[in-house]
Amino acid sequence: MNVIAIHGGAGTLRKTDMTAELENAYRGGLEQALTLAYENLKNGGTSLDAVAIAVKSLEDYPMFNAGKGSVFNSIGKHEMDAAIMDGQYLKAGAVCGVSNIKNPVLLAKAVMQQTDHVLLSGEGAMQFARQVGVEMEEDAYFFNELRHQQWIDLKESEVFQLDHSDKKFGTVGAVALSSDGNMAAATSTGGMTNKKFGRIGDSPIIGAGTYANNKTCAVSCTGHGELFMRSVVAYDISCLMEYKGMSLKDACQLVVYDKLVKIGGEGGLIALDNNGNIELPFNSEGMFRGCIDKDGNMKIEIYR
Amino acid sequence: MNVIAIHGGAGTLRKTDMTAELENAYRGGLEQALTLAYENLKNGGTSLDAVAIAVKSLEDYPMFNAGKGSVFNSIGKHEMDAAIMDGQYLKAGAVCGVSNIKNPVLLAKAVMQQTDHVLLSGEGAMQFARQVGVEMEEDAYFFNELRHQQWIDLKESEVFQLDHSDKKFGTVGAVALSSDGNMAAATSTGGMTNKKFGRIGDSPIIGAGTYANNKTCAVSCTGHGELFMRSVVAYDISCLMEYKGMSLKDACQLVVYDKLVKIGGEGGLIALDNNGNIELPFNSEGMFRGCIDKDGNMKIEIYR
Repeated sequence: MNVIAIHGGAGTLRKTDMTAELENAYRGGLEQALTLAYENLKNGGTSLDAVAIAVKSLEDYPMFNAGKGSVFNSIGKHEMDAAIMDGQYLKAGAVCGVSNIKNPVLLAKAVMQQTDHVLLSGEGAMQFARQVGVEMEEDAYFFNELRHQQWIDLKESEVFQLDHSDKKFGTVGAVALSSDGNMAAATSTGGMTNKKFGRIGDSPIIGAGTYANNKTCAVSCTGHGELFMRSVVAYDISCLMEYKGMSLKDACQLVVYDKLVKIGGEGGLIALDNNGNIELPFNSEGMFRGCIDKDGNMKIEIYR
Repeated sequence: MNVIAIHGGAGTLRKTDMTAELENAYRGGLEQALTLAYENLKNGGTSLDAVAIAVKSLEDYPMFNAGKGSVFNSIGKHEMDAAIMDGQYLKAGAVCGVSNIKNPVLLAKAVMQQTDHVLLSGEGAMQFARQVGVEMEEDAYFFNELRHQQWIDLKESEVFQLDHSDKKFGTVGAVALSSDGNMAAATSTGGMTNKKFGRIGDSPIIGAGTYANNKTCAVSCTGHGELFMRSVVAYDISCLMEYKGMSLKDACQLVVYDKLVKIGGEGGLIALDNNGNIELPFNSEGMFRGCIDKDGNMKIEIYR
């Protein structure tokens, strides 16, 4: 059984600001990522490769806040975070605060596969990237007029933005189940516009924004990272299933619509279980999301 | 009811290398931290302040790998991580990859109390430290002949050490319960000797090395950080209690002596529940540890 689900961030544009043209462009990016990842799965590829392929595709697409489309931080640079986890061996790799890395998810995968570490940060992580030959890009590659204007609008203020003025939580992620029963999850983000102080959110934190375990589920989150970190959201879903015997659906409902709402934790997540069930819950106005289910049906949605 | 427990790292010196003089010095550092924190609790202080006081005392004591006693990284610098969590409001603060901060635990506390963020990293975190006036120290303050020799011995190699050649996992931490029923946890570390690539371990990761929740427990871990991150150890203890109805003791036994052992995750943790029960399990040769229980009895131990 092959299943893939992806997200391109929660919050989204307000529905009133969305044009048909913009919507088509977002949908195109999601469709491309789904198609590439599903092709890999159908050809016998691993769920781990599938989530890396999907997230790479979203990172390369300039409309999502990750990779090429990353927002500007307070000094006009791009600082990105990413994580990947293999549900079969409970192995994980992650990077935070990296710049000029074309695909942070591939760097996270290299951390998982080529080191004994889980999380590498900042300049050190980039040194590792150069050593293993992960693809680098100049600042110009990440330049985007819209993102730049968002930063210019904010940079004299003390305001951090989770993506832009209408609270789009910019993150991308993928979860997959391959026919061998293995699951994986990956998440990547460009952070918050005008962010300062080397702030790190939930995306690269195993258990918070990203988690996979063949016994239970694969999860990738998007939303107000601080609240997701304090709630250890991704591992919470797994524990509710493993220790309380909840279904994936019930665990997702409890966490996203009850626990997170109570603390003001806006956002959502994508999740799979080992029977190929898919959940894409969010408590924000929208979440860019899509999946190809066990019957091969593709679905792409933005609003409720 | 006032309860405090602390650790100064797992692994320790091999018993055969421990002298009476060294042991006295370690015990002195643990006793001082316990006494200061317990005094705060007896005077009506919060559990949050108590764990910060205990960890600050251990950071100031040169024999533990945190604060003043931090090990050298691969370029001969000190890079420290710390986290603190308040079990009442599930609020948390953490820093990673900071240098020249006298007490990383106090910087983590400032992140929790003075920002909307959970985790700040590297140079950005240090900028925040300067802005809020957290005490800084020159490199010389952190210089220590023993640590320097450990680094010199390793720096031409590719070897990272979790503390030194006999696998001492250098971390300090504290958990406390105050008479108002609130619990807190804090952890601080100087990382691994000769560490490269901005490696970050479990200490500053909420849910992995540090977690507190009045409903269940307060936990601070020490050990092979990567395995603790992949296992989301601290939140796992909490979930086993909340979702499976396990006692603190049973949850700690399962995680430290079964789940971690199976994946080679050497180390230990300190934990409290809201009835004032204390668990100090470790699967390594030793763990510097101590506590003052609900009856006011102090215990300090190093080996099994």
